[in-house]
Order: sequence, then C-alpha cells, then structure tokens
Amino acid sequence: MINRLFAVDSWKVATTNLDKKDKRLQESLTSIGNGYMGMRGNFEEGYSGETHSGTYLAGVWYPDKTRVGWWKNGYPDYFGKVINATNFIGIDVFVGEHQVDTFIDDIKDFHLDLDMQTGILTRHYTWVSSSNEIRFNFKRYVSVAEKELCVVEVTAEVLSGAKVAIKFVPKLDGNVTNEDSNYDEKFWLEVDRSNGAYSYLTTKTVPNDFDIPQFTVTTMMKNSTKDYQTHSSDDVEMLVNESFSYELKSGEKAHLTKLVAVITSRDIEPSQQVNQAENILKRANDQGAAKLERAHKIIWGERWYKADVVIAGDDEAQQGIRYNIFQLFSTYYGEDARLNVGPKGFTGEKYGGATYWDTEAYIVPMYLSVTEPEVSQQLLKYRHDQLAGAIHNAKQQGLKGALYPMVTFTGVECHNEWEITFEEIHRNAAIAYAIYNYTNYTGDESYLITDGIDVLTAIARFWADRVHYSERNQAYMIHGVTGPNEYENNVNNNWYTNTMATWVLRYTIESLAKVSPEKLIELGMTIKETNQWQQIIDQMYYPKNDELGVFVQHDTFLDKDLRNTETLNPAERPLNQNWSWDKILRSCFIKQADVLQGLYFLTNEYTIEEKKQNFEFYEPMTVHESSLSACVHSILAAEIGLEEKAVELYARTARLDLDNYNNDTDDGLHITSMSGSWLAIVQGFAGMRTYENQLQFNPFCPKDWEGYEFKLSYRGRLIKVIVTKEHVSVLLVEGESLEITLYGEKQQLSDQIQLAIQ
Amino acid sequence: MINRLFAVDSWKVATTNLDKKDKRLQESLTSIGNGYMGMRGNFEEGYSGETHSGTYLAGVWYPDKTRVGWWKNGYPDYFGKVINATNFIGIDVFVGEHQVDTFIDDIKDFHLDLDMQTGILTRHYTWVSSSNEIRFNFKRYVSVAEKELCVVEVTAEVLSGAKVAIKFVPKLDGNVTNEDSNYDEKFWLEVDRSNGAYSYLTTKTVPNDFDIPQFTVTTMMKNSTKDYQTHSSDDVEMLVNESFSYELKSGEKAHLTKLVAVITSRDIEPSQQVNQAENILKRANDQGAAKLERAHKIIWGERWYKADVVIAGDDEAQQGIRYNIFQLFSTYYGEDARLNVGPKGFTGEKYGGATYWDTEAYIVPMYLSVTEPEVSQQLLKYRHDQLAGAIHNAKQQGLKGALYPMVTFTGVECHNEWEITFEEIHRNAAIAYAIYNYTNYTGDESYLITDGIDVLTAIARFWADRVHYSERNQAYMIHGVTGPNEYENNVNNNWYTNTMATWVLRYTIESLAKVSPEKLIELGMTIKETNQWQQIIDQMYYPKNDELGVFVQHDTFLDKDLRNTETLNPAERPLNQNWSWDKILRSCFIKQADVLQGLYFLTNEYTIEEKKQNFEFYEPMTVHESSLSACVHSILAAEIGLEEKAVELYARTARLDLDNYNNDTDDGLHITSMSGSWLAIVQGFAGMRTYENQLQFNPFCPKDWEGYEFKLSYRGRLIKVIVTKEHVSVLLVEGESLEITLYGEKQQLSDQIQLAIQ
Repeated sequence: MINRLFAVDSWKVATTNLDKKDKRLQESLTSIGNGYMGMRGNFEEGYSGETHSGTYLAGVWYPDKTRVGWWKNGYPDYFGKVINATNFIGIDVFVGEHQVDTFIDDIKDFHLDLDMQTGILTRHYTWVSSSNEIRFNFKRYVSVAEKELCVVEVTAEVLSGAKVAIKFVPKLDGNVTNEDSNYDEKFWLEVDRSNGAYSYLTTKTVPNDFDIPQFTVTTMMKNSTKDYQTHSSDDVEMLVNESFSYELKSGEKAHLTKLVAVITSRDIEPSQQVNQAENILKRANDQGAAKLERAHKIIWGERWYKADVVIAGDDEAQQGIRYNIFQLFSTYYGEDARLNVGPKGFTGEKYGGATYWDTEAYIVPMYLSVTEPEVSQQLLKYRHDQLAGAIHNAKQQGLKGALYPMVTFTGVECHNEWEITFEEIHRNAAIAYAIYNYTNYTGDESYLITDGIDVLTAIARFWADRVHYSERNQAYMIHGVTGPNEYENNVNNNWYTNTMATWVLRYTIESLAKVSPEKLIELGMTIKETNQWQQIIDQMYYPKNDELGVFVQHDTFLDKDLRNTETLNPAERPLNQNWSWDKILRSCFIKQADVLQGLYFLTNEYTIEEKKQNFEFYEPMTVHESSLSACVHSILAAEIGLEEKAVELYARTARLDLDNYNNDTDDGLHITSMSGSWLAIVQGFAGMRTYENQLQFNPFCPKDWEGYEFKLSYRGRLIKVIVTKEHVSVLLVEGESLEITLYGEKQQLSDQIQLAIQ
Repeated sequence: MINRLFAVDSWKVATTNLDKKDKRLQESLTSIGNGYMGMRGNFEEGYSGETHSGTYLAGVWYPDKTRVGWWKNGYPDYFGKVINATNFIGIDVFVGEHQVDTFIDDIKDFHLDLDMQTGILTRHYTWVSSSNEIRFNFKRYVSVAEKELCVVEVTAEVLSGAKVAIKFVPKLDGNVTNEDSNYDEKFWLEVDRSNGAYSYLTTKTVPNDFDIPQFTVTTMMKNSTKDYQTHSSDDVEMLVNESFSYELKSGEKAHLTKLVAVITSRDIEPSQQVNQAENILKRANDQGAAKLERAHKIIWGERWYKADVVIAGDDEAQQGIRYNIFQLFSTYYGEDARLNVGPKGFTGEKYGGATYWDTEAYIVPMYLSVTEPEVSQQLLKYRHDQLAGAIHNAKQQGLKGALYPMVTFTGVECHNEWEITFEEIHRNAAIAYAIYNYTNYTGDESYLITDGIDVLTAIARFWADRVHYSERNQAYMIHGVTGPNEYENNVNNNWYTNTMATWVLRYTIESLAKVSPEKLIELGMTIKETNQWQQIIDQMYYPKNDELGVFVQHDTFLDKDLRNTETLNPAERPLNQNWSWDKILRSCFIKQADVLQGLYFLTNEYTIEEKKQNFEFYEPMTVHESSLSACVHSILAAEIGLEEKAVELYARTARLDLDNYNNDTDDGLHITSMSGSWLAIVQGFAGMRTYENQLQFNPFCPKDWEGYEFKLSYRGRLIKVIVTKEHVSVLLVEGESLEITLYGEKQQLSDQIQLAIQ
C-alpha cells in the first residue's frame, strides 16, 4: 500500500498540498543534511499540529540509561542515541499580534519544494485574513561548501489589504527533547548565551554515568534584514532570539537572512567555539547570500556529475534513484572518519543515529563506484579505529577476538536485546566482507595488508571461538544466532552465518599469506591457529535439502507451516505492525534476504541454478519488511532472468520512502537501504560484477523503460554505461584503457564499446 | 557454596552476630508475614548501613511503565509490581541527642531470633558508650489472629552509668521507594495524616495510565507507654511520628508498645478506613499485649499441628523444612481468593510480588495435603476469576482460548520479555494440571464440572490453536517456545510442552464427558472441536532418541556440546551470574527440570526405566539454578532408587535460603519453591502418590537420618506417617478407615499399619 505525498518529478520533491494528516511523513521526506548536520523538514515559523521537530549533529550523542525488562549478563551498560540538538532554523512570524501557524491559519497557494540537484528547500504560501493577504517565502539549506553553516531566509510580501505590522523572530531554541527518551528527560544544559549582533547559545550534554565525554555545542546566528522598525530580544533560559518588526503596506516586502553556524566540541574546544562561530559567520556575511549559495551548488553539481543515474521513460524510477542518491550524500560523503552512515541519517531518532552493519553490506558497494576510493576507505578506517571496542564486545560474551557491534558510536556495543546484541553476529562477517569488497574493487591491497588484516584476524578469532563441535554430528556448528532475517531469533546453524563465518576464516588465511613476517608476529599468528581455522572450514555443517535443492535457512526451518505471502491477509501487512512477535517468529515469513544474502555476497561461488532454486523457494515467503531486503532480491532476480520481478523489487527499493511502502517513514528515512536502488540498477539490471580483477556487465533494459545510464569510478577511470532497448554502450570518460567483460566476452575499453542487448 | 548466617536450631532462626556485610541477607531471612501483610527483617530503630527496607501489603501493587529495549507487538501495556508500602515498624531511639544506629554504634551481646513456632521476631543488644550501658529489646509480629494488626515493642534498660535521657519516636513513614523502580519515582501520594492518640497516615498510589484503580491505604498506630516526661510530634509530609522522652537511672526501664493497624481499599473504602483502623486498635488496646499474643500463637499452633514435619537425627534438615513451612504459611493461608503466592512473598521486590505458575506446579500439591481443601480451592478460584484476563492474553497474540499469564495481578499478563511472555506457554498446562491435581487428590469432581471445565476448555482451545501441522513431517508441532528450562529460549518441540499440551487436550476431553449438556452448550463445545483436538493428540510429534533411550528436550538439543556439570569451572557458578546470556543458551546446561518435570507430573504414564534413563541423561547436565529444580529431581531420584542423590537434592531445596545456595537470597526468599522440601520428603522419601483414587506410599529413611514423620489431610482424614530406619507406620489420626497402598500392596488403614522398611 503506497502513500505518496509528493508529485513525481525527476529532480524535485514538491507538493502544492499541505497534508496535515501526514505532516511527520512530509518532514521526514524533506529532510536535508550535509554530513555534519541536518534536520527534518520542519517549518521555520512553527506549526502547532502533530509534528516531529528534529535537528541532529553528526557524532553528537548521549549514552542513555538502558531499558530492559530483565537484565542479562553481557548487556552493554548504556544505550547510545543521537540527540535532538538546538533547533536553529526557527523564525517565528507575527502578523500584528497573531503568530502565524499554518496548522490553524487560513492559507492558500501552498508550495513546498526540495530541489535534489542543490539540496535547497523552499516553501511559500499566501496567508489570508479578513484584512490582508500576505505571501510568505522560506528558503533553507545546510551548506556542503562550509559544513558548519546553515542559511535560512524568509520574506513577507503584503499582496493586498491595509498596512500591517509584521514581525520576524529568528531564534536558537535549546529547549528540545528526544521523542525516544525514556522519561522525557532533557539531554542538554545551558552553558552560556548571549544576545547581540552575533547571538549564540552554548549547550552541553548532561552528565552520564558511563565515562562518555560530554559534548559542548555552540550555535550562533547572524541575522540580516533592512527597514525594520524595532529590534529586541528576550532573556529566557535555553533560548536566544531577536525580534525585528516591520510596517508594510500592500506591495511591500520584508526580508530576513539568518546565517547559522554550529560548532561542536568534536572539532573545537568549548573555549574557542564562540570565536570560531563568529569567524565563520563574519566570513559568510561578507560573502553574501548569493555567493554562499553558488559555492554550495557547485559542490552538489560535482557530486551529481560522478554519481547521477538517468532513467528514460519512467519518471517514478528516475525520481526514486535521485532521491536516494541525494539523501545518501546528504548523510555521508566521507569527510570525517569518526562518522558513519546512520540508518536514519539526520531524519529521525529511531535506531539512535548509530552505526549498523548496513554500512558495510549496502553502502560500501555503492560508494566504491560513485565516490573516490578515499570515501570508502574512511568507512573501513572507522572500523579499524574501533577495533578495541569490538574486542571488548567479544570479551563481554566470554569470547576471543572481536565482535563488531550491532549498534555503536564508539565501537562498544550499545544495543540491548539479547537476540540481537548477542546473537545477530553475522554482522561481524559483513565487516570483513567490506575489506574484501574494497580490495577486490580497487585492486589496492595496501589497506588489506596493513590495517585490514588486524580487523580480519580479530574477526576470524571470534568465529573460531564461537563455533562448537558436535560429537554426534562430527561437525562444527554455530548455535544460538539471529540471521539477517530478524523474523527468526536464536536459531541454530543459520546457513548464511555458518557460510560467512567460514568465508571469513578462508579469506583471512588467504590474506595472511600476503602480509609481512613482522605483521604476523604483531598479530601473534601461529600455524596451529590457522590449522584450527582450516579444520573448522573443512568440517563446518551447512544445512541443506537435496530434495528441494536448497540451502536451508537454519535447522528445523523446513518443519514450519511453509506457505507463500499470497496466503497472507493484506490487512495484516506489514506483519511487524500487526502480528505478535511470537507469531512472526513461528511463521515461515522472511523479513529480508538470508540464504539469498549469502548467494549475493559470494556471488561467484554459486551457480545460476543454485541461485534460481533458492530464490524460487525463499522469495515467495519473503515479506520484504526490512528496507534492506528488496535490493538484494532485485539483483538476484535480474541475474536469474526474472526481469519483471527485478524491476518490481527495484521500484520498492527506490521509492520505499517516497511511497512510504513500510508505513514507517514518518519516523525518518531508511538511509542505509537507499543504496539498494543504485545497486539494483548497476549490479542488477546492468549486471555489474567486479570479482577476479575484472569489471563485468550483463545488462538488460527494463521493459517499461526506454533506457538508463550511470557512471562508475573504477581503478582510476570514470566509466559511463548507457543501456537502451537496443544497445549497451560503455564509455571511458576518464582514465586509461582497460579490459572489461561484456555479456561474458572480454573487451578492451579504450574509448567506447557498443553491443546489442542480449 | 553456602553462606549460613543463622545457627542450626530446630525451631529458631537465631544468631548472636550482627553481620553487617550480609545485612540484606539477614533481612530476607527474618522476614515475617500473615498473608495480608509482611515485611523484611529490618531494624525498628534504623540502620545507616547497606539495607533494604521493605514492607508489603498483599494485592497492593502498581502498574509501572514497561521497560523494553524495543517494543514488540503483543507486549503488555504495563509491568505490575508490588510496591513498598508505608514503613510502620519504625521506632527511632535516642540516647540523649544521639540516635541509636547499630551500624555505627558500639554494641555487644547482640541477639536476633525468629521463632518459627510463633512467628515472633525478637532482638536485643547492649548499647555501650563511655558513660552508659543500655540494653535494648525489640519484639515484633504480624498477627495471624487479626490480619490488619502488627505489634511492635521496644524496651530500654539502663544497665549501668549515669542518669540518661532516652527517647522513643514511633513513626509511620510514607517516604518509601522501590528498589526496582525505573527512575526512582515515588509510588505513593499523601491523602491525609493526623497526630493524636490514634495517629495515622493515609496514602494513595499515584495515578497510572492503564485504568488500574489506585489503592488507598490507612496506617494507624496506637502507642502505649508509661512514665514518659514529654510527648510531641512533628509535622512533616508523608511522615507521622510521636516522641516520648524518659529520664532513666541505672536499673530503670522504659517500655513502649506500638500497635499498628493497616487498612487498604481492597477491603474498606477510603472514607471508612480511619474508623475501621481505630476500631481495630481500640479493641486490640483493650485486650492488651498478652492476650493479643496468645491469640496469635494459638493459630500458629493449629497450623503446625496439621503440617509439622519432624526429622530425627538431622538438625539442618529439620530446620530447613520448618523454615519453609513457616515462610509459606506466612505468605499464604488461603483467606482471600483474590490473592496468590508471590515468588518472594513479603520478603522482597524481585519478580514483582505477582502470581506465577509456581503456585499450580509446586504450591497446590503441598497445600492439598497440609491444609483443608478449601485453601487449595481458593487458588483454583483465583484462576477461574481471572479467566477473562487469560482470554485477553491469548487474543494479544492472535490466538484462541486462554493463555494464563507468566506474571500477573489481575489475570492480564504483565511481564515483558518476548521469550517468556509469548513463549513460556507451558505455564498454561500447569493451570490445567492443578485442576486435575485437586480433583484427583480430593476425589471431589464438583469444582471440575462447574468452574474447572471453563478453565480447561479455554486452555485446550489455546493449545489447539497454537500447534501447527507440518506437512513435511505429517505431524503437529509446537514451535517457538521456552520450556521450564529457561536456559533455552525460542526452541521448537519442547518435549515437555508438547506432552503437556496433549495431556490438557486429553484431560479436557475426558472431563467434558462428565459435565451437563447445559454446560456443554454454555461452553459452545462441538464434536467437531473435540475431534480436532483428538487429531492433534493422535498426531503430535514428541522428540525422542531411541539410541539414547531418552525423550529429547527439544529439537536439536542433541547437537549441542553435551557435557556434565563437573566440567564446569566452580568459579563460574552460578552460571547466570557469570556467563553471558548467549553462552548459557548455547550450552547444554539445564536450569531446572524440563523433560523430567513432565515425568514428574505425569508420573503414572511412564515406567521406572524411562524415568531412570532420562534422569541419568539430564540430571548430570542440570545446574539447578532455579529454586524450583532440586525438589523435582529429588522426588524422581527417590523413585528410581538414587537415595543419596535424593537426599542431597532435598538438602539443597530445604536450605536454599538458609544457606543462600544461589547467592541471591539478599533479594528475598524463594517462597514458591519452599514447598519443594516438603514434596521431596513426602513424595520423594515417603513415595506418596495419589493417582487412581488410591493413596500410596513407598518410603525409605535417608541414611543419615534416624527417622521422620509428617501428617496428611486426605479426603476427610488426618493421617500420620512415621518412618524410621526399621519401620514405616501409618496412623489414622482423624476420620474414617480407608484403603491405602504401601509398598505396592493394598492395606486397610483403620487405626495403624506398621511394616518393615523395604
């Protein structure tokens, strides 16, 4: 069931309808960010209806008291969460004594527009009273040229009626709470505030019991406006504001530009923050709004040049893929190795804005192609920097090696469900897989043999300790896990987990052969240890069923009441919002790719026939209620020739949020799954593969599309691929000639290759 | 590892040592109660060291905000907890200006004594300063003759030194919190307070969001003392006190009797509470302390007459069994069908003072024998009265019929762990089993065919809906459960659960044959429905292994690394305090009887050989970390001839708290498992069975005991059983002659039967 608030448009997310029922959904969808900070699509002037006001600063979080029904040994001490920061976009607007409130007031000609090409959010409407019609315009963006800077503009124009008093009250409001707080507690204390030409509010996170440093944040504004009558400010705890009053006749305008700088103690120590903010604002003010905007737009232009995907003949698909790329780049562009890609980015609080395995599984494969290798390497470095935390996590469970966390800010686990925290350990393989992925894609082994091997070895040691040997079966097994399909908990011998565990051991043994003797000593590696790993590899148990020709998701899965999703009552979907948890667990229905995730990751190790049989067995039982599900299925469907299915699943991935498929986008966007639509086009429709140092394509053009094109950064080249109904063209835009494989045939790509679609 | 604070003594729990390190453990062990109210063994005069002050009123609870990491569909709205009520035992004591504090002060000749025969707690010590030695005596009991009444006495006697000012400040302190509160919030508001001859404090539970009525409680005191110099009181929110000052010379005494009445809105509406309390206190005051105490002692005497177990030659065992009987009767004696037996009684907060399946599984079997049938019937009535709540619980999970809660005050589930709340559904069979147990023991089918059948039918419908049919196995299965062994979660085909589920269906079908046609119509029973039940009975899958000759705890259990508890590092026990939860789940180690629980319940359906093989397979893997574990194993060990093992496990049951085996008695006593020691003696050592309308014994005398004796109430008779090394004697103390079975031989019991031990 889809719920589409915004019109289909190739570069815009725009509507002329103020949908008060779905205000929170609108806010999520019009979120903007610049990797450093971002906010939901809240209205500057306030809105008294149901809304979720949210402003978030990357890496600024709080270790909140853990909530669990019953404490279990091994639980982490705290639950880390991104916290709502000072709301700095606010500009209260008054007409006479009346505060404009679009929830209640009579307005017309509403227009809301997020321009994906530039990340600029604009809005206007005509406010109507018995005596006046006044048009209000708002514009806002967070600069990608100057990360600490946000620009907000408001204009009031009296269209008709008597002379009227207008007041703008730009403000910095520290009185914010988290929707997901335990007990509506505040996470911020005021440190300092000042009203002046450069008004600011400095706040600090409340103390915590877990030795996590407190964050100090200074938010400063510089307001520019002309022809105002009076100027004042209030003296209120946690609030800084300035008030500008105008008297306007019909046809007259008032305009205000609010420049905001946000400085955090992650970069600048508290005593220097006010200076730093003032410098930024002075410089910005000197440049002026037009120049600031131009600098910002240029950078977005460069990003799009490398990463844009063009789809001809399907505007919905076109809007979907651009929306995903836009929101991903708004969340992360690799500037800061201490940051990662939160599942909701800057668009909501659920999942705590922390780091999940989603990054390695879904983000790295795309970023490798659409950004420079340095961006992906930042993501690998993030995990290497947090190795100590991962070792701590394994120790918490009495295990050797490193267990990368399910949810983290620092490397230390901060998620509190035993079936996830302790059991969804397949995540650990994804961290290793990203190292393989990077090395395989770039052909650069330098990271692997220096830092990468530290991570691989520690993960391998975890797996070697986590298996047990079953005497009765004469095999190694892994009991008590939750696979990628989180609609099963605490299962034994999850095929995916067992398969990826031995893959890690294999890849680590292979990689250890490449490192220096000094590194081997540093790692404390012995032949005895790798021999033991080899024994586990050789004797691992993998559940499968020869009669059905499938790998079995986990022991006893086939004992379920096996049925396909067509037997479900549509009114009961999504299941996770309608069924009790035990009913979900007992059912055969699958949240996201599990066996199929393994066939996707290790694509070159399985035959088309194996992929086909498993896809045909599992996909009909899959409800795709994880945002991470559809893309993997789309790619596999494309590979086994189910083109229609591939396209259907692509559409679901690409427009998951725009069409609110899972009925939860009001909580925020599904950022980490947004790469899925890109992967579905590039790895799915175009059949791009990169193993064995060979760039391969196997493209088809979806039936209802006229064609599509995308660019890839690959080993120093920029390559453009154009697929139409008739032809596939591969163009070398930048860089040296290389050998590629097209439809299984090797070809030398020097300038351009064109072949007929097969 | 045992930790024994109190001396071994057949009728007392006494010590001359004030153990400040284990103060909380001392407090748990010297808890007293009268079914209506009770409290931990806190000191009247206060104690500034580590302590857990706790006063609890049966059925007075609060629906607290649920704490979970991630909400899951089906979770109950609130977590119900017993709440710490007004502390009414307090009497601050001053010597001059100094408030006596036994944690800091210099004292000698400390003596603390809980008399199990009478439930009277006494304490005395000599307080020492540079100028005086003063002896303080305290006495306290909660009356079993007048349930709303508590009597506290204090005496000060100046043994030596100068004339000294002594002050007693008896008080009612409503400023109490729960140790297990989420955010240290208060659960009580003051409604009214008054100082006078009858000082009182009326408090009311804070409002809640769940439509649970607020409780109002009036606590009133009447203090009697003589020869005091001054009398005053303070005016403080939530506190009522009176102050009596004395001037004592060496050899002189001051004595104060504090009578307390506690009235709750469960019985008396708020506007009448002060009157009611005053009436009770006036009557008590008129009677005087000596008479009150006599009335109280007489009732305890009657209880002991019917229920005492005498053990010759083993004082530790003797103290253990009496302690258990004493604490059980202090918690519940069947006066109020709205109440039940909380796992911690009035001795602590953990497990929320709510009702668990423990009652049906462990309490009913003992209470049937040691109290009149009406007491056990109250426990059945409790569940019948809560049937609507159980139906609600099943509906929460999308299932038919009734699911009795894991934890409840009202019938509605209030526990919040999916693996327990949603999955530990075997509890539902125990509720049905208690009806069988009662009917089978008493021979009285009247409850079964009227109210009992309502409960049975509803539970049967739950099971019939909860199974699924596995096409591949051509069998019914039950997936996604937690068995009695809570060291496994979310397993499939738990043998115990599957077995008890079909047992319920069988017993319900049998019982339906006995009810009236009108009742069948009322129940909406159809042949079609019972046919479907019969099909489930006929085609249920029960995991077993013929090679090992055992029933398998659940699917894949045998794939574990199977090992016995001797391979464990003693420093890592108890496992639940040392291992991470996932390690516990993955291991083969068993918390409490699971397969063996089924062999115990359905004892007549399995052969000795089956019991033996399963016991020998499972018991060596069992860590007995549930207080409910050892007794079942003891009984089975006795039956299969492992007498030494039976006695070892008895000792563990009987002295679990006195010796703090599980290192958690500081949280409170393990009330619901206390029946285990009685069951181990009567069903274990004496081999008492009652199926097929036949009372049977098969006794042995433990090697290190000289003998033991106990009484049974059975179908209108009072029967005494005496077992010595040489003989077993069965005496008919009251009632008509009946046929019994002794060592497999039928015997007519008219007066006395004596046989040699076989």
